[in-house]
Amino acid sequence: MEIFLYRTGAERVEEGFAAADLPELLADKTNVVWVDLLGETPEQIQEAKDILLNIFRFHYLTVEDCIETRNQPKVEAFPDYIYFIVHGIKPGETGPGNFATKELDGYLGENFVVTFHDQRFRSIKIVKQHLRNSTFACSRGPAYLLHQILDHIVDLYMPIVDDFDLEITRLEERAFDMKRSDNAILEDVMVLRRSAMRLRRISARQLEVLYRISHGEFLQIPDNVLPYFRDVHDHLQRVSDLSESYRDLVSSLFDIHFSVIANRTNDVMKTLAVLSAIMLPLSLIAGIYGMNFENMPELKTRHGYFITLGIMIAVAGVLLLYFWRRGWIFQRPEISDVPSSTNPPGKKDMG
Amino acid sequence: MEIFLYRTGAERVEEGFAAADLPELLADKTNVVWVDLLGETPEQIQEAKDILLNIFRFHYLTVEDCIETRNQPKVEAFPDYIYFIVHGIKPGETGPGNFATKELDGYLGENFVVTFHDQRFRSIKIVKQHLRNSTFACSRGPAYLLHQILDHIVDLYMPIVDDFDLEITRLEERAFDMKRSDNAILEDVMVLRRSAMRLRRISARQLEVLYRISHGEFLQIPDNVLPYFRDVHDHLQRVSDLSESYRDLVSSLFDIHFSVIANRTNDVMKTLAVLSAIMLPLSLIAGIYGMNFENMPELKTRHGYFITLGIMIAVAGVLLLYFWRRGWIFQRPEISDVPSSTNPPGKKDMG
Amino acid sequence: MEIFLYRTGAERVEEGFAAADLPELLADKTNVVWVDLLGETPEQIQEAKDILLNIFRFHYLTVEDCIETRNQPKVEAFPDYIYFIVHGIKPGETGPGNFATKELDGYLGENFVVTFHDQRFRSIKIVKQHLRNSTFACSRGPAYLLHQILDHIVDLYMPIVDDFDLEITRLEERAFDMKRSDNAILEDVMVLRRSAMRLRRISARQLEVLYRISHGEFLQIPDNVLPYFRDVHDHLQRVSDLSESYRDLVSSLFDIHFSVIANRTNDVMKTLAVLSAIMLPLSLIAGIYGMNFENMPELKTRHGYFITLGIMIAVAGVLLLYFWRRGWIFQRPEISDVPSSTNPPGKKDMG
Amino acid sequence: MEIFLYRTGAERVEEGFAAADLPELLADKTNVVWVDLLGETPEQIQEAKDILLNIFRFHYLTVEDCIETRNQPKVEAFPDYIYFIVHGIKPGETGPGNFATKELDGYLGENFVVTFHDQRFRSIKIVKQHLRNSTFACSRGPAYLLHQILDHIVDLYMPIVDDFDLEITRLEERAFDMKRSDNAILEDVMVLRRSAMRLRRISARQLEVLYRISHGEFLQIPDNVLPYFRDVHDHLQRVSDLSESYRDLVSSLFDIHFSVIANRTNDVMKTLAVLSAIMLPLSLIAGIYGMNFENMPELKTRHGYFITLGIMIAVAGVLLLYFWRRGWIFQRPEISDVPSSTNPPGKKDMG
Amino acid sequence: MEIFLYRTGAERVEEGFAAADLPELLADKTNVVWVDLLGETPEQIQEAKDILLNIFRFHYLTVEDCIETRNQPKVEAFPDYIYFIVHGIKPGETGPGNFATKELDGYLGENFVVTFHDQRFRSIKIVKQHLRNSTFACSRGPAYLLHQILDHIVDLYMPIVDDFDLEITRLEERAFDMKRSDNAILEDVMVLRRSAMRLRRISARQLEVLYRISHGEFLQIPDNVLPYFRDVHDHLQRVSDLSESYRDLVSSLFDIHFSVIANRTNDVMKTLAVLSAIMLPLSLIAGIYGMNFENMPELKTRHGYFITLGIMIAVAGVLLLYFWRRGWIFQRPEISDVPSSTNPPGKKDMG
Repeated sequence: MEIFLYRTGAERVEEGFAAADLPELLADKTNVVWVDLLGETPEQIQEAKDILLNIFRFHYLTVEDCIETRNQPKVEAFPDYIYFIVHGIKPGETGPGNFATKELDGYLGENFVVTFHDQRFRSIKIVKQHLRNSTFACSRGPAYLLHQILDHIVDLYMPIVDDFDLEITRLEERAFDMKRSDNAILEDVMVLRRSAMRLRRISARQLEVLYRISHGEFLQIPDNVLPYFRDVHDHLQRVSDLSESYRDLVSSLFDIHFSVIANRTNDVMKTLAVLSAIMLPLSLIAGIYGMNFENMPELKTRHGYFITLGIMIAVAGVLLLYFWRRGWIFQRPEISDVPSSTNPPGKKDMG
Repeated sequence: MEIFLYRTGAERVEEGFAAADLPELLADKTNVVWVDLLGETPEQIQEAKDILLNIFRFHYLTVEDCIETRNQPKVEAFPDYIYFIVHGIKPGETGPGNFATKELDGYLGENFVVTFHDQRFRSIKIVKQHLRNSTFACSRGPAYLLHQILDHIVDLYMPIVDDFDLEITRLEERAFDMKRSDNAILEDVMVLRRSAMRLRRISARQLEVLYRISHGEFLQIPDNVLPYFRDVHDHLQRVSDLSESYRDLVSSLFDIHFSVIANRTNDVMKTLAVLSAIMLPLSLIAGIYGMNFENMPELKTRHGYFITLGIMIAVAGVLLLYFWRRGWIFQRPEISDVPSSTNPPGKKDMG
Repeated sequence: MEIFLYRTGAERVEEGFAAADLPELLADKTNVVWVDLLGETPEQIQEAKDILLNIFRFHYLTVEDCIETRNQPKVEAFPDYIYFIVHGIKPGETGPGNFATKELDGYLGENFVVTFHDQRFRSIKIVKQHLRNSTFACSRGPAYLLHQILDHIVDLYMPIVDDFDLEITRLEERAFDMKRSDNAILEDVMVLRRSAMRLRRISARQLEVLYRISHGEFLQIPDNVLPYFRDVHDHLQRVSDLSESYRDLVSSLFDIHFSVIANRTNDVMKTLAVLSAIMLPLSLIAGIYGMNFENMPELKTRHGYFITLGIMIAVAGVLLLYFWRRGWIFQRPEISDVPSSTNPPGKKDMG
Repeated sequence: MEIFLYRTGAERVEEGFAAADLPELLADKTNVVWVDLLGETPEQIQEAKDILLNIFRFHYLTVEDCIETRNQPKVEAFPDYIYFIVHGIKPGETGPGNFATKELDGYLGENFVVTFHDQRFRSIKIVKQHLRNSTFACSRGPAYLLHQILDHIVDLYMPIVDDFDLEITRLEERAFDMKRSDNAILEDVMVLRRSAMRLRRISARQLEVLYRISHGEFLQIPDNVLPYFRDVHDHLQRVSDLSESYRDLVSSLFDIHFSVIANRTNDVMKTLAVLSAIMLPLSLIAGIYGMNFENMPELKTRHGYFITLGIMIAVAGVLLLYFWRRGWIFQRPEISDVPSSTNPPGKKDMG
Repeated sequence: MEIFLYRTGAERVEEGFAAADLPELLADKTNVVWVDLLGETPEQIQEAKDILLNIFRFHYLTVEDCIETRNQPKVEAFPDYIYFIVHGIKPGETGPGNFATKELDGYLGENFVVTFHDQRFRSIKIVKQHLRNSTFACSRGPAYLLHQILDHIVDLYMPIVDDFDLEITRLEERAFDMKRSDNAILEDVMVLRRSAMRLRRISARQLEVLYRISHGEFLQIPDNVLPYFRDVHDHLQRVSDLSESYRDLVSSLFDIHFSVIANRTNDVMKTLAVLSAIMLPLSLIAGIYGMNFENMPELKTRHGYFITLGIMIAVAGVLLLYFWRRGWIFQRPEISDVPSSTNPPGKKDMG
């Protein structure tokens, strides 16, 4: 637990208070108090619960929601404060598909902000560092302080979205690779699809929360701070719009995959067909002169054998020419080298 | 039929009343009365009907809806009470696709809650046990008591949703299994699809009911109880959001299935092509030396036969090398062992 | 044309009036008058037109809409009455896809209900029989009487919906049947798709009409009758929800069909591949010993021929074993007997 | 330019006025004036512009919109008049896909209707003929006169929609035709898809215009005329609903096409497989007895050759029987004759 | 930085002021001042920042948004001015898929318009030229001046949309081209898909901005200027509607591609099947007469060999006839020449 106190007009943000000091600090309505509660261990959780219930006297249900961790983003108004849940995001270790969300619960009152989280937030750490350097954020009141926290949380969504873009482009390239394209790519696509759906779901709910916060529904947020929240809302809007479009892109990965398989099967078929087309007639010729009729004049001619071999070569040549003309053979290479040049612009396109 | 009575300030919730006691109990507006009607047998249904129509004098139409069992969730306001239908859920025996719904009809008045159901509800049993141990729920009034019941009903949706997640992952693995993938999986996918649609339909309607209950539309629910209903609403929202996304996931199972079949066909084709590519030329060579021309110098050479055999082996070797280079042979195993490692993270992803 | 009259307090509903009696009957505002006009022949239509325009003095446009029969459901308020169009449904003769709709036009005023239809309605016949037996419906006023008619009309939608369920299940089974699956099934699917779309379109428009009627928009419908109309609305809601989901199910029939064809092609390919894989090597062996080299030592051995035959059988055996291991042969039967057991629960699922 | 004047109470609609007469005609507020401007030539356009700007003094922007011709349907209110753009429809010459739209711009004021169009409208011609025969439309005021024009314009949408129905059915039949099905059908499907999208887009925007006109938003349209506009709106609603469903139907044409190709490939594969299955074993037998082993007892028997031929025929017979049983041969005809009987009801279904 | 000043009643728009003159110019409320800030270099950006913050005293957040360049279109009201972001569009160099967007930030106040952009806008250049020639735009107030700028920006969207149309038609033709159709087309389709999604996203957000501006939400825009903004809105509406439909069209490109591949595979299969069907029986005949039975009467006949050759030719002829009848051979050319004639009308269809 960390407590930050800004007394109106003070030159520094004070720190290092204990829970017992809170009632006094909160009594002075000109103070701005930020109580940041970390609930990593059972003891911390118990302490946080005590503070929330006994000192702040928040609604029991909200305290319960704080401690539980599978809640969706929401915001609720109570007579003296608003309660909110937002989700921070943490990039996955193995890829964008593995991003994790972290719940941040909080309260905003007349002269205080309370935040509770069971995991460390990089964005909260940054805001704390700002406070230690400057009173700017605090001097504008608790709503502005809250805006600072949410702004940093939403800022961390953007790199995830960029990772998605990259991953989709990478999968696209893999899908187009005719040599290696196999079912393994489908599994990666499935992982991405689930993640994109998750991102969309989370950002949609979060957007709703920010919309309500930023459009003047709550009295705890003064009018002059609303534009700042609207700004956060607009940033998240972009995340939401993009994650919406990933669904479409991911499903076209399936289409590309199918197309590549189909083309490959087509390729195999052509090879087989050309091969059979050449070998079968030659075999037939050989078969004919392998017949045991007594009266087969060609067999007795002097150069019959060599003429036959010549005919075979000629037939093969004509057939090869025919298939080459029809585009069934000797044309593959020039096709597969196109991707590398046209794809990069496609990628930039999403920017 | 079971009747629970809480007299304001009492230390225990009383039980064991008969229908005849109801008018007296209800007359005292400070009481909290819960009448739980079970309609398993025709006699019970008749008794319930009597109580609802003659003692409570509820609207005839609602009583009819109680007894019928194919209704959709709804809530309706009457001057003195609200009438609601919600659906409980019961996991299926053979899989998540077989979950069943149970209708719970009920009324909420100034000082009473009435519930009617034709099947036993585990959630109602739990609430009863709570009442026997503590007056807490009752002391907060009938609306809070109703919240308790609905909360337990909605809580039982979550395991079903988790089962869906598991089942989808299981089907995904089956779909990726190149050896066994057959049409049987499609039937299981169809069953799941229908169930996911059913879950979505039910949770959507139910969500509507809870939204209306939890947003202050009904006077029977005091403002201080609304947050509790909103909490139930939020839980169900998650169920609804997830069931929405199952539709997408289920339909990508089809895509995976198609892809696996296509890849398998491709595989078979390659085998056939490689085989023909090797056998046909060798057969042609054998055919050539099977011709009966009189003048075929090779036939008379001493090692002609062995040289021919050697040429055949060489041709086969060159062709095998060619197809191996092209990736058509001896590459399958390394592909199929990928799934087991990348899929589990994908699964956790939905959490 | 049939006219039913209920005088407040009377014990029976009177019948057998002529058009000329109407002005008198309508003048007494305590009467409840139902005029049911059948427009099967041009004469009947002319008579109906006269009554609607000259006696009731309804808006000319509505009378025109009555007589025309390609209108969509709608409801419109006029100062003294409301005009509505609803659609009854008639099961098709050859299947659920051939269901037909019948237009019912009507007016509801202070003390009258007028209905016009160019085909006989079973639901109207039933209501008439009720009226002949009991004054209950009439004694509750014209709005309640109208509710009775609409209720019976909507009730007849449910069997159609059940038929759709059955038909989809039947087509699903056919689609899974690997032996018979052909393009004919696609045509039946197309017919079903068009019908499901039609059902959805009709029920959606009708739902709109019932929503407006049942939510207190029209003064002609007293508050105490609204719950009855809401009940009808809820029944139709279920029809609409289900017909919405049929679209999804019908389109998965296409997916199943494709999958079955793909699997079948796969099957054919395997047969061809296995066959070629066994025959071609054996033919090669035979071809080798059919060569005419002078120096082929094996040809002169005593048991060369039999040893060669033995080798051929051995090669065939090894190849068969290999393909059996790979799952390409002798595995089909166990797959195709799965459907019959897993499909029925899937069917029940929609209930 | 044509001007129609109806003086209240007059027995005929007067014609043949010049632009110069307009100020006088419009000054009398009891007159109903219809100015129909045709803008086929630059001179006509210039004249129309003069009248609109100098006599009627309409907003400059609307006059500009009149003359331009790529506008979407809209309606806008100005203090003294409303300005609207609607689109008439003209069936295509080569098929429903080629239907064209014609822009009709217009103004409705207290005592006048102005229409401007750069192509001739059949619907306007019809209204003019009506006016020459009867004062009915004019006597009900300018709003009713406008309704007449719009009604005739919307009426011409219906045949286009019917043409779409026919064309879809025709393409469906072609798609099912296994002999001719080729990529050419896809191009026709694409043309239809684009047209259906266009029809949907136009009717959706137009519907919006008619909705606003018919729901009392504009003071220029008296309440007693609203039902007439609502009627037009409802007709267009049907067009919009149907064009919505065409999208679905058109995309199932793709599915049918794929299915037919897949079935045909399957067919070809079966032919190939059956053929190979019969020829390869027979060739093997022939190959075996073509070997040159010295000790091959069968070769010396008297009837060896004939027995071998017999065995060949027997093997072929057994294989043919096997494939016939498996349904691979001799079953095609009974499939392809189904369409003609089941499709027509499907067509009527959309009615 | 360029400043344009119009003094009410003046005959020319004045130019060439410096930042220092602004306070004086703005003080006279009858002036119309347009300050156009270009932020290409860091110095220009710094100067712009100074002007926006110190002279105009705009909200800090909006100034920050000006300078940043990855914002989405939006509009926000402040007490004395409105702040907006719109996106201009710049056609791509290599195709419609590469179009780029340029951000234009701006403010509209009682007597001023401020615009800020970090790239040169062709539309702004055009408006400046107009100002130099005529006072018309300025004399109608700053809102009208802003309309001029937005109008020119939106006008440049239309050619991009037309390019999309063309590109889709071009890709369609390529997709139909059976000879060249390969995976390269899929990549171009993917690029187009991403661009269409981007265009839709941008135009949707922009439409929202224009809707709010043009529907009287902001006091800075007088009622008589609203129709002009509505006009801009309607133009953008068309862009948005079309970009919506591109999604559909682009995804049918995938369908066409699949169909062409499938048809081609079918073609290859047929060739293979026909070939095998003819060669295998002939080879069998040759094989039979290559057997070494001692007693094979045909071998000794005089014309046996020639009769056998004759039979072979006859068999081949019959089979060719059979396959020709079945439509498997000699029919391809007449199919592929259809596109060129039916596609152009399809193209025009979108107009």
